[in-house]
Amino acid sequence: MFKKISFRVVIGLSATVLLLSACADGNEEAENDVSPDLEDAIENVSAEAAPEAIEPHKDLNQDPVPLEMERDGTDVYINMTAQITDIEIDKGYTYKAWTFNGEAPGPLVVVNEGDTIHFTLDNMDPAIPHSMDFHAVHAAPDKGFADVAPNEEGTFVYDANSPGVFMYHCGTDPVLSHVANGMHGVIIVQPEDGYPTDDEVDQEYVIVQNEWYQYNDLDDMTNNEPSQVVFSAKALEDGQPNTNGTVSALKDEPLTAKVGDKVRFYINNVGPNEVSSFHVIGTIMDDVYLDGHPDNHLTGMQTVMLPASGGAVVEFTVKEAGTYKFVTHQFNHVQKGAAGVLEVTE
Amino acid sequence: MFKKISFRVVIGLSATVLLLSACADGNEEAENDVSPDLEDAIENVSAEAAPEAIEPHKDLNQDPVPLEMERDGTDVYINMTAQITDIEIDKGYTYKAWTFNGEAPGPLVVVNEGDTIHFTLDNMDPAIPHSMDFHAVHAAPDKGFADVAPNEEGTFVYDANSPGVFMYHCGTDPVLSHVANGMHGVIIVQPEDGYPTDDEVDQEYVIVQNEWYQYNDLDDMTNNEPSQVVFSAKALEDGQPNTNGTVSALKDEPLTAKVGDKVRFYINNVGPNEVSSFHVIGTIMDDVYLDGHPDNHLTGMQTVMLPASGGAVVEFTVKEAGTYKFVTHQFNHVQKGAAGVLEVTE
Amino acid sequence: MFKKISFRVVIGLSATVLLLSACADGNEEAENDVSPDLEDAIENVSAEAAPEAIEPHKDLNQDPVPLEMERDGTDVYINMTAQITDIEIDKGYTYKAWTFNGEAPGPLVVVNEGDTIHFTLDNMDPAIPHSMDFHAVHAAPDKGFADVAPNEEGTFVYDANSPGVFMYHCGTDPVLSHVANGMHGVIIVQPEDGYPTDDEVDQEYVIVQNEWYQYNDLDDMTNNEPSQVVFSAKALEDGQPNTNGTVSALKDEPLTAKVGDKVRFYINNVGPNEVSSFHVIGTIMDDVYLDGHPDNHLTGMQTVMLPASGGAVVEFTVKEAGTYKFVTHQFNHVQKGAAGVLEVTE
Repeated sequence: MFKKISFRVVIGLSATVLLLSACADGNEEAENDVSPDLEDAIENVSAEAAPEAIEPHKDLNQDPVPLEMERDGTDVYINMTAQITDIEIDKGYTYKAWTFNGEAPGPLVVVNEGDTIHFTLDNMDPAIPHSMDFHAVHAAPDKGFADVAPNEEGTFVYDANSPGVFMYHCGTDPVLSHVANGMHGVIIVQPEDGYPTDDEVDQEYVIVQNEWYQYNDLDDMTNNEPSQVVFSAKALEDGQPNTNGTVSALKDEPLTAKVGDKVRFYINNVGPNEVSSFHVIGTIMDDVYLDGHPDNHLTGMQTVMLPASGGAVVEFTVKEAGTYKFVTHQFNHVQKGAAGVLEVTE
Repeated sequence: MFKKISFRVVIGLSATVLLLSACADGNEEAENDVSPDLEDAIENVSAEAAPEAIEPHKDLNQDPVPLEMERDGTDVYINMTAQITDIEIDKGYTYKAWTFNGEAPGPLVVVNEGDTIHFTLDNMDPAIPHSMDFHAVHAAPDKGFADVAPNEEGTFVYDANSPGVFMYHCGTDPVLSHVANGMHGVIIVQPEDGYPTDDEVDQEYVIVQNEWYQYNDLDDMTNNEPSQVVFSAKALEDGQPNTNGTVSALKDEPLTAKVGDKVRFYINNVGPNEVSSFHVIGTIMDDVYLDGHPDNHLTGMQTVMLPASGGAVVEFTVKEAGTYKFVTHQFNHVQKGAAGVLEVTE
Repeated sequence: MFKKISFRVVIGLSATVLLLSACADGNEEAENDVSPDLEDAIENVSAEAAPEAIEPHKDLNQDPVPLEMERDGTDVYINMTAQITDIEIDKGYTYKAWTFNGEAPGPLVVVNEGDTIHFTLDNMDPAIPHSMDFHAVHAAPDKGFADVAPNEEGTFVYDANSPGVFMYHCGTDPVLSHVANGMHGVIIVQPEDGYPTDDEVDQEYVIVQNEWYQYNDLDDMTNNEPSQVVFSAKALEDGQPNTNGTVSALKDEPLTAKVGDKVRFYINNVGPNEVSSFHVIGTIMDDVYLDGHPDNHLTGMQTVMLPASGGAVVEFTVKEAGTYKFVTHQFNHVQKGAAGVLEVTE
C-alpha cells in the first residue's frame, strides 16, 4: 500500500491553514483554528470544483496498483499502470484523478546511470489512451512515448544515460489535460560517480510540486490560475531499486531530520503551467545541482528557479531544532497550498 | 522572398490541433480531425480579434522588404525597415503587424564577435516613430536606440563585442505595444573562438518564442494572458553573413535532422511578457549555453529556463527516427500554440 | 531622515509615463505630457485602491524610525521596527503600508560574512504580530523568526556565514499579506574574499523589485495580477556598516555614473508573487553572480532570471553618455511601473 504526505492550504482565505494529511490512510490533522467561515469556504471550493468526469470514468475508482520494478544487472523492468483513482487533494475534496498507479504525483522511480529500462504501461483506463514520456531518456516520441489504447499494454525500452531529477508524464494529446488531471511524477537517474557532496548528506527526500485546476476543465487549465499548488514528499530510503527492487515506498510521517544534518531534496516542479521559486525557510542551500546533474553546481542559494518540468538536487544544513517550512516563494502559491514541513529534532 | 515556418495551436479548445503552415506561400496543412466546433471556435477567435488598427494603418499592407546586409572586413552594413504588414498568425487570422521588414519575428541577423555594425532603420510607417534596441550592443538608449520619425531614416553604429543569442526589438514607447504588435527578432553574435562543442554539431536552427495578444490592445497586453504563444523557426545555413552577405534566408520545410545528429538550437524567448520553460520532447540537452555565451555552460538539462528576452544555445542528439516536438513545458502555452516539430529520418 | 528613489508608471494607460519622485521629501516630477485622461486614470486608480485598513491601523501613521546599527568587532547590533506608515507608492496614491522602519522596501542592511547579528525587532504595531525572516541566516523559523506581539520587542541572534544579496521579510501568517503590504527588504552579506571583479567596479547601487496589490486585499494578492510593479534604489556608499555603523543612507538624486564606469547593481526581486527578467537597456551584463554568491558566476548576460526572492550581483559598463533604463523585460510589468533610470554623464 502506498502512502503519501501532501501539504495543502485552502485558497483565497484570510489566513494560511496548513493541512497535513496522510492521504492513503485517511488520517487528517487540521489545525484547531479552522473557523466556520473557513469551513464554509472549503465546502464552497469543493462544490465549485465538483468533478465532471467523462462518462466512462464516472463510476470508476480503481484501487492503486503498486509499481513493479525488478532489476537484473543493469536491466530494470518497470511495470506501471494508467488508471482512474480518487485522490483527496484537499480536505474533503476528492479528485477523480487520471493517475499512474493510483497516485498523483505518481510513484517515484529510481534507476542508475547506465541502466536499460524495460518499461510496460498497462492502460487500465477503459475510455481513453495514455502514454509515458520519461524526460530521463532519448526516444522518438511518436514511438517510444506512443499512446497505449484503453485496456491494452505497451512495452518500451530505453537507456538511462544522463543523471538527474527528471519529470515523467503522460504525453497523450491534449497533454495539458493528462498532466493537470494527475499524470505526472519523478524519475531519478542516479549519477554513476555520485554527487561531489554525497558523503556529507544525512537525509534524502523527494519533493514534487504540482498544481491542480478545476476538474478536467481544459479551458480552466489553459486560461486561469491554479486552484491548488501543492508539494508531495516521497522518501528514498526504502525505495532504492538496488536494495529490494521496489521503489516509491512513501513515508506516512512528516519529513524529519536531526540538528546538524545535511538534508538533500530531489525536487521537480511538474507544473503543468507554473514556474517555481523553491526556498527552504530558515536555511541556505549550500549546494544546488540544476536538473540534478552533478556538473551544474551552484553554491549558497536562497532560492532556486525551477522552470515547469525543471528539477534540482538541493542540499542544506539544519542547525537548530524546530519546524522548517519549504515553499515556492511565489507567495500567492503558498496561499494555495505550496508549503511543506521538515521537523528537526535534537 | 522570405518564408517562415510557424507552429500554432488554436486556443481554449478541447483538443490540441497542430497547424503547420508555411505562411509566406499560403500552403497550409490542418490536421484532418478539425471538427465543426473547432472551426467555429477558430472563426470566433478571429472575430474577437478583429484588427482595430490606428487610422493611418487601416488600409496599409506594405510588402515585405528583404533585409540588406553587406560585409566589408569587420564592418557590416545592415539596412532594415519598420513597416506595417499583414501576417497570418493563426489559421484564417491575419494580424496587421508592426514589423521589421514585413516579418514577425523579424529577420534573423548574424554577425561575428568583433564586428562593427552600421545599422540603418528605414521607418516606412507613415504614422508613428519606431526604433531599434539590439540587446547585443552597448549604446546610450536615448542616442543609439533613438526614435526614427515616420517616413525617415536613422543610422547608428555599434560594436558587437559580446557573443550570444540576443533579442532585438523596437524600443519606442510604449515598448509593450511595439513588441507585442510584432517588432521583435533575434541577432546572433558568433563567438570569436566558437563554442567548445562546435565540431559535434550537425544541424543548426534558430527558434524564436513569442506571444500575441488582442490586436493593438495595450490594456489586453498589460493585464491579460496571451491569446497565442508560438515558435518560429529560421534556418542558419543560407544565412551566414560570411558566406554571401545576406542573412535570414528562411526554410519552407519542417525542421529536419538525421538519426545520430547533434542538433543545435539558437533560441530566444522574445516575450513580451511570459517566461519560457524550453524543452525538446524525447531528448536531453547535452550542452546548454545560457544567453548563448560560451562560458555559461550547463550539462544534461531536461528544460531550460528562459526569462523574457532570454536566449540560449542548446544542443541535443536525436537517436531514433521520428517526430520530435519542442515546447515550452508551461503547457497552458502549448495549448495556445507553443509547439514546433523536428522531423528525424534515417 | 530616510529618502527613497522609486520609479513607477501608472498602469493600463496608453503611454508609459515615468514618474520619478523622491518620496521622503515630497518632491515629485511628472513628465510634462501627462494628459487629462491620464490624470483621470490616476485618480480612478487611487479611488479604486482606497485603503481599507484594519480598524486599529485606520488613524495610524507612525513616523519612520531610522534603523539602528552598531558594530563591535564582528558583532553587529541591529534594531528595526515593525510599524504602520503611509507610503506614497504612486502619484497621489498613499498606501498605509505595513513596514520595517517606515520604509517599503525596508532599510538596506549590510553586514560582513562572518558577522554575528544581534537583531531586535520593536513591534510598534498595536494590533497584530510581526516577525523577521532573514534569508541570509540559518535559524529554526519557529524560534529565530518567531512572532513578536504588538507593542513588544523580540531579540534574536544569528550568524551570517554565507555571502549574497538576500531578501528579508515578515514571516508572520499569512505571509503574503505581510509582504504584499510592504514588509520586505534586502540584507547584503559581503563576501569575506570579495568578488573577483571588485577592483573593476566604479559605482554600486542596490535595486529592489516589488509588486503592490489592492490595499490589504488577500484575495487580490492571491488571485490577481499586481497593480504596480516597481523598483526602488538604495545607494551603498554612505551605508557601509564598517564605516559609520549605519546603513541604508538613501540617495535623493537619480542613479548616476560616468562614461566608462563599471556599475554594480545588487538586486533582489522581493515579489511577493512575480518572477523578474532583469535587464539594463543599452548594455550587457559582463559579470553576474547568482544570489550574489561569488562562486555562481555568469558572463555576458542580456537578461537575468530572478525567482521570487532571488538576488544577484550584476555588473555592466556604460560606454556612452545618456539615459539608461533598467527594467524587468516582462513588459506588462514595465507598463505597471517596473522601469528605473541610470543617468550617465561624461
